[in-house]
Amino acid sequence: MQVPHSNPFQIRSFASGPAAIPAEVLAEVRRDLADWSGSGLSILELPFAGAEFTEIQDEAETDLRLLLGLPPHFRVLFLQGGASAHFSLVPLNLLSEGDVASYVETGYWSARAVSQARRVCAVHIAARGQRAIPPFDTWRVANGAGYCHITTNEAADGLQFHDVPELNGVPLVADMTADLLTRPVDFARYGLVYASAQKNLGTAGLTVVIVRDDLLGHARPGTPAPFDYALQVKERSRVNTPPMFAIYLMGRMLKWLQRLGGLAAVAERNLRKSSRLYDAIESSEFYVCPIPRRDRSNVNVCFRLPTASLTTEFLEAARSRGLLHLSGHHSVGGIRASLYNAVPEEAVELLAGFMDEFARACRKRV
Amino acid sequence: MQVPHSNPFQIRSFASGPAAIPAEVLAEVRRDLADWSGSGLSILELPFAGAEFTEIQDEAETDLRLLLGLPPHFRVLFLQGGASAHFSLVPLNLLSEGDVASYVETGYWSARAVSQARRVCAVHIAARGQRAIPPFDTWRVANGAGYCHITTNEAADGLQFHDVPELNGVPLVADMTADLLTRPVDFARYGLVYASAQKNLGTAGLTVVIVRDDLLGHARPGTPAPFDYALQVKERSRVNTPPMFAIYLMGRMLKWLQRLGGLAAVAERNLRKSSRLYDAIESSEFYVCPIPRRDRSNVNVCFRLPTASLTTEFLEAARSRGLLHLSGHHSVGGIRASLYNAVPEEAVELLAGFMDEFARACRKRV
Repeated sequence: MQVPHSNPFQIRSFASGPAAIPAEVLAEVRRDLADWSGSGLSILELPFAGAEFTEIQDEAETDLRLLLGLPPHFRVLFLQGGASAHFSLVPLNLLSEGDVASYVETGYWSARAVSQARRVCAVHIAARGQRAIPPFDTWRVANGAGYCHITTNEAADGLQFHDVPELNGVPLVADMTADLLTRPVDFARYGLVYASAQKNLGTAGLTVVIVRDDLLGHARPGTPAPFDYALQVKERSRVNTPPMFAIYLMGRMLKWLQRLGGLAAVAERNLRKSSRLYDAIESSEFYVCPIPRRDRSNVNVCFRLPTASLTTEFLEAARSRGLLHLSGHHSVGGIRASLYNAVPEEAVELLAGFMDEFARACRKRV
Repeated sequence: MQVPHSNPFQIRSFASGPAAIPAEVLAEVRRDLADWSGSGLSILELPFAGAEFTEIQDEAETDLRLLLGLPPHFRVLFLQGGASAHFSLVPLNLLSEGDVASYVETGYWSARAVSQARRVCAVHIAARGQRAIPPFDTWRVANGAGYCHITTNEAADGLQFHDVPELNGVPLVADMTADLLTRPVDFARYGLVYASAQKNLGTAGLTVVIVRDDLLGHARPGTPAPFDYALQVKERSRVNTPPMFAIYLMGRMLKWLQRLGGLAAVAERNLRKSSRLYDAIESSEFYVCPIPRRDRSNVNVCFRLPTASLTTEFLEAARSRGLLHLSGHHSVGGIRASLYNAVPEEAVELLAGFMDEFARACRKRV
């Protein structure tokens, strides 16, 4: 069931957030807004403590667990605040007063995580990378660190972890906002994973926290109750009204991922998409990607043009073809094509074709 | 434009939260999900920093200010967390370490506010009411209190403030989750007002905070950045991605309130609705409302039947007529009819008619 947007000309969004939503999911949402499953109520009108919404939330958790192959000793929380709030809430929940945490800095978003963690705990930098992931054997995790934090995909910089190190029992904590559900994850390697929903899980306002049982129960006394992870585990994410529409929408996104064949199939598709663009960059002798091949993101493909005026020209020409939201992050500049799950291969093909054409035309002019 | 739900039989929801949404607003949302204003993108796909969403957010703030007649020295914030998170976040933002705040306890929700504030500040109880608002001349606000907190509408208990006292310069802070936008508010009487969105502002996941300029700038060092009110004022509620869909939906609700004629007209309509039910209670010699007339809520009409089995019978008979979600709050029991803005007068008329009929039938049996 492929339901086109009502718009007459084809728009392709490569926006970093909120990302595109599959047309068939949008069609389901429109249906459920009129009437949820014959209830006579809109999906927006279901009482949060009622049987209907409870089933929606439970099913979303079950589907998320199945897709991720989540071991039973991991708990799933559907919270508010965004990853930026959890930059502080993670240390507030995992560390006692005075504890230290190690952080690996690899770009814009991990630096934000560091600056927000510093508000509430002692932060030690285990390793720092400039447009590359520092080799694992150079990481120095602090003695007695409560955890070591990484950002698995630097959405502003276009850099992604394709492997993670063993840390001698120090729990690995990861902000996976940009790549959760874009590929399989081996949860044996992680202690806690968190992600805002507006990339691959639907819409802003929902933050998924997945946490290993044994790490819970250390929330500082002043933590607001809806952000006390252990309390939220006990109350099944219902200390107060959860972000219901965002949870419902995530549920629809999860069903869509199941129909695509699960995360292994999704990862293959995402790899085909990013490879198509990286190939266009490499073969162009015009575009430059500053990230070494082994650390390149399959989710955010970032590259540069020779001059600022060519960059502007590129963005305008792309827009005139309906290829939207390709500006790089303000901290980095250049071009960024975000290829979250819902961006179809055919849109990437159009973009790659346009890139080839634009490069050819410009090389002629030089 | 009255667009009926697709459901063949008419359902009337008196749920306390999420509340009903006007059919014409649901129709607009369905339209905008397919295509936002000819952009070729769904309302769910707009980038948060782009011109389209900025306009949506700015217009929502402008409309909210107009409807409330908000003076310029009040700032409007669109945050996450829910009122329950702001039970702690308000003292974290307004008080310094060691400061005291006064609270007035009038029911279930103000007691929750007190227990959450106690996690982060010294709480002094200025007055306590059992199913009635304590007379203003009995309130004892603590010396040097940073603020005095009230819950303007106790949604579980069915009690509402219809006036507030002068407090000799101590700022009045109010949780208005259940009655913001149900009637005009004199903001000269308040220092800070906050409300979750799922009652009269649309959908869960958005918390509106309205705060007087001069109270800002005291956030405790450990407050997560997206919950630092002063920082969010500076960043126009965009320290991180805001709950975009909930903000958009609030915008549609505000336009709908404008079409109804503004808050004075809305308040009259709400008064007609609640009076119809209180009249049915008073004239029944069967139902009992435990709240004194002057303190009764126009938003949540709570009443009791003579026995628990009659209560069950009432709920079942109501459900068979399509009158849903009338169970009282678990802390109170009995019946609760929530009459938020979107509940139409005609639904209240149906409920009142059913109440009359049910009472007549039961009185005969006795």
